[in-house]
Amino acid sequence: MTPTELLATTALASWKQVTTRLDQGVRKATDEHLQKEIAPGKNRIYYLIGHLTAVNDRMLPMLGLGDRLYPQLDEPFVTQPDRAVPDPLSIPELRQAWNEVNTKLTEAFEKLTPEDWLKPHAAVSEEDFAKEPLRNRLAVLLSRTNHVSFHVGQIVLVK
Amino acid sequence: MTPTELLATTALASWKQVTTRLDQGVRKATDEHLQKEIAPGKNRIYYLIGHLTAVNDRMLPMLGLGDRLYPQLDEPFVTQPDRAVPDPLSIPELRQAWNEVNTKLTEAFEKLTPEDWLKPHAAVSEEDFAKEPLRNRLAVLLSRTNHVSFHVGQIVLVK
Repeated sequence: MTPTELLATTALASWKQVTTRLDQGVRKATDEHLQKEIAPGKNRIYYLIGHLTAVNDRMLPMLGLGDRLYPQLDEPFVTQPDRAVPDPLSIPELRQAWNEVNTKLTEAFEKLTPEDWLKPHAAVSEEDFAKEPLRNRLAVLLSRTNHVSFHVGQIVLVK
Repeated sequence: MTPTELLATTALASWKQVTTRLDQGVRKATDEHLQKEIAPGKNRIYYLIGHLTAVNDRMLPMLGLGDRLYPQLDEPFVTQPDRAVPDPLSIPELRQAWNEVNTKLTEAFEKLTPEDWLKPHAAVSEEDFAKEPLRNRLAVLLSRTNHVSFHVGQIVLVK
């Protein structure tokens, strides 16, 4: 691998490590466990998995990888707090959406070149990107990887 | 910037963003707030800041950046759980240690070249690194950045 390939692949390995860890936790968890709150009166694990599914799904158009799979999850899992609306997905549907989004993302990420990762993401204008080249696709990947870690830190509080 | 510089700088920007966010929270928090538990019976914020200070401090030798500043913090903040031993630092000492470690790390990171980030870290042998070139210094930086995000997700639960 060239130096640029090694750098990009190291970043992608971090994404895979973080999402795989959560994915294994979701697979092992019972449906009942997923309904638990991370702390008294706080979000349920159910909500956080839906939230991460919706936010990760947004990376598809943001990184030029295709249309979103689940745009309808933004309202219940990003705009609204937990339990503000009836649960939009059954637990099996939630498991499937989480899995589908991350599988599609990781497969698409694997095909990107280091040069692709350095292109602007969809939410930055050409003018702004010329001045701020760090607003690239890799920055989005790293930000979303940290976002998953942030909520995993909460999810592991539930015994 | 060259492509390798852009990739490495994007990763470093992610570290800075995550640690700056927590640093601002620590600066704004009262001493009383730092003594709170993240949830009933769970770690105090005090312990988590000490834990992150100790774990981040380990990056100094691990990335070939110098000796540790606070090796004595491993026992109370990594080996032992919260409240197993008397608090080893006063709150002002804790704030200072956190600040000192992250300032020293970020200053040292700024001087590294992309080629430096692709070198093996101190805990991998030459033989293993030849087979697994992703066990590089950048992987350590990304892992520690996610580790900070993981605990920030817990710290923000305290209102």
